[in-house]
Amino acid sequence: MFKRKISLSGVVVGLLLTLTASSVLFGQFGGPRIISPELHPDNTVTFRIMAPLASEVRVSGEWIAGYGGSEMLTPSDSGLWSVTLGPLAPEFYGYSFLVDSVQVLDPLNGLIKRDGVRNASVLLVPGEESDLYAVKDVPHGSLAKVWYPSPTLNLTRRMYVYTPPGYADSNERYPVFYLLHGGGGDEDAWTTLGRTPQILDNLIAQGKAKPMIVVMTNGNANQAAGSGDAPVMASAAAQAPVDRTQSVGRFEESLVKDVIPYIDSHYRTVATKENRAIAGLSMGGGHTIRATNSHPDMFGYIGVFSSGTREPDEAFHQQLDALKESGVNLYWIGCGVDDFVYESAKTLREVLDAHDFEYTYYESSGGHTWANWRIYLSELAPLLFK
Amino acid sequence: MFKRKISLSGVVVGLLLTLTASSVLFGQFGGPRIISPELHPDNTVTFRIMAPLASEVRVSGEWIAGYGGSEMLTPSDSGLWSVTLGPLAPEFYGYSFLVDSVQVLDPLNGLIKRDGVRNASVLLVPGEESDLYAVKDVPHGSLAKVWYPSPTLNLTRRMYVYTPPGYADSNERYPVFYLLHGGGGDEDAWTTLGRTPQILDNLIAQGKAKPMIVVMTNGNANQAAGSGDAPVMASAAAQAPVDRTQSVGRFEESLVKDVIPYIDSHYRTVATKENRAIAGLSMGGGHTIRATNSHPDMFGYIGVFSSGTREPDEAFHQQLDALKESGVNLYWIGCGVDDFVYESAKTLREVLDAHDFEYTYYESSGGHTWANWRIYLSELAPLLFK
Repeated sequence: MFKRKISLSGVVVGLLLTLTASSVLFGQFGGPRIISPELHPDNTVTFRIMAPLASEVRVSGEWIAGYGGSEMLTPSDSGLWSVTLGPLAPEFYGYSFLVDSVQVLDPLNGLIKRDGVRNASVLLVPGEESDLYAVKDVPHGSLAKVWYPSPTLNLTRRMYVYTPPGYADSNERYPVFYLLHGGGGDEDAWTTLGRTPQILDNLIAQGKAKPMIVVMTNGNANQAAGSGDAPVMASAAAQAPVDRTQSVGRFEESLVKDVIPYIDSHYRTVATKENRAIAGLSMGGGHTIRATNSHPDMFGYIGVFSSGTREPDEAFHQQLDALKESGVNLYWIGCGVDDFVYESAKTLREVLDAHDFEYTYYESSGGHTWANWRIYLSELAPLLFK
Repeated sequence: MFKRKISLSGVVVGLLLTLTASSVLFGQFGGPRIISPELHPDNTVTFRIMAPLASEVRVSGEWIAGYGGSEMLTPSDSGLWSVTLGPLAPEFYGYSFLVDSVQVLDPLNGLIKRDGVRNASVLLVPGEESDLYAVKDVPHGSLAKVWYPSPTLNLTRRMYVYTPPGYADSNERYPVFYLLHGGGGDEDAWTTLGRTPQILDNLIAQGKAKPMIVVMTNGNANQAAGSGDAPVMASAAAQAPVDRTQSVGRFEESLVKDVIPYIDSHYRTVATKENRAIAGLSMGGGHTIRATNSHPDMFGYIGVFSSGTREPDEAFHQQLDALKESGVNLYWIGCGVDDFVYESAKTLREVLDAHDFEYTYYESSGGHTWANWRIYLSELAPLLFK
């Protein structure tokens, strides 16, 4: 009935090789193998796609400044479209084709990253600026998808837990860094778009960051888990669309009441303020501000990425005083000069200034992008727990 | 420079909501939201894609028997193509569009599964036959990506480890099931295409399977990790194309010498033959046959999915005698009547018959498909460790 698999490609061919040791390699079936993207030694990149019936093919990627920019490909007689771009600056890019205006992921590239409900093909252009994002021959931490009870939100919820290299082979206790995603994202975002495991592995191997546990939660208070695993398949509650009006303060409460006690009781942590950090981007920056304002004794290190505040009310001022009074090891703010939240981040700095609350400010080029958030993580992680 | 993100969609819109609690919901920007796939109560499904310039749009999915079958969509005046199919039988399907013959993942569906280097959009049609594949409101196990040293293969390699619900909250020891993928796949395959975490969570919740640890390794002996994480970014060794001629027996050796000792020393296992199972599909079935023949005292439960053997040589016969002599709790073979390896699986059964080696044979409809391998896992797991 529905037991047969229609092969979207020549995958069945590969299976013919599975029973015996054959000297015939995969690529030798079906003629010369077309490669896309092909990265050249000078960091120019050739993109290729077969589209014999198309009248226009473009490629659109995160290397192009501005909204919706794209480059034309040129067809061969056989309908193979191609273009060589660059040299491209070292970066962990997302890109896709536009075939007669339809978005097409690169069929020749298995690597994909998901941003909310949108997927993009992935290209890592190597170089100094992207070096922390690469998988290197260094000790790797483990990354686990963990389900935990959240009585506060009345859900069993999912999070990712990164344990650093050496964790599994020691009895040591480690500090914990809670890392929060932004609106439209979920608990998957920092592990993929953010390259957190790679950045931490590399910073730790270089001796620049202390080995630490990193906990990446789902900040959408009415979701059990993100779309990477759940939505069409989970319970009604898990499928519920994100409703931010119902969520203000609730995620932060669950973080402190449910997540942190779970982590401290299931992992070898040092459960003190000086060994607990929190940072978040955009919506997650808002979560960070509210969680630290409401729980001054909880987090010694605070990071606010591409986020800020409106003109605060009196309660905010009082909380900030209490937070300052309680002692904070580091309050770190990162924002891009072109970020649409620039003014909010500026207001946050002004409020901190007014309270004589010491902070570190990192201003980057660019805007509200994962390119910046990877940089902020790379800058902040070495400052934690020192 | 490359700090700005080009939005492949309207993702930036979502980010505008991230700083304040807005009552405006995501879908209210940009007009009425188009849904694809839309699952109707009778399990008919409507597929939709905007392609105003296309002259032909088809949808191709695993519900269609045979290679390359597809259904036509019909355009509206605005260029929105749609078709309603089914009712579709309950199953965990992959599908994609063909827009003027170019494969296009459903841009409105964030859920994707990867088979080797090929991606497909995902659709779970609910019902009895797919019930084990759904994320349910039951206790969930954890799934971890773990890197381990493989001196045998001279690589640090990656595997997935599923620990059952309750593992993190107990001091109990658990049996271990080693589950191997096929050619063209990697350690990711059983976790996504195979729905292993969901199947185990559900079988355990129903009391049908014993709580167990499931270890999903990478069976390509010269790869450090599969393309989900590594290839363009890893070391030269990790990027090396799969070379099966170099691999025969090497993965099996590393499984026994590197993986099993690592698991037994890092997890709370019962490290006895009676509490150790192994199964694999296709190439992984070959791995299973060779690993159990070569290490008769290692695995009490053996599963061979869609695989078998050629007419065996004398050494094979001797190994099989030794394996039988050592005592095996279960030798389980699953194959589809339309599978191209059907004759190999038959030869395996005949050889076992000739040795009076007891086995269980499960013959399904269909062929060499993940639909069958999910069924075989669902059938075998309840028989383990009992």
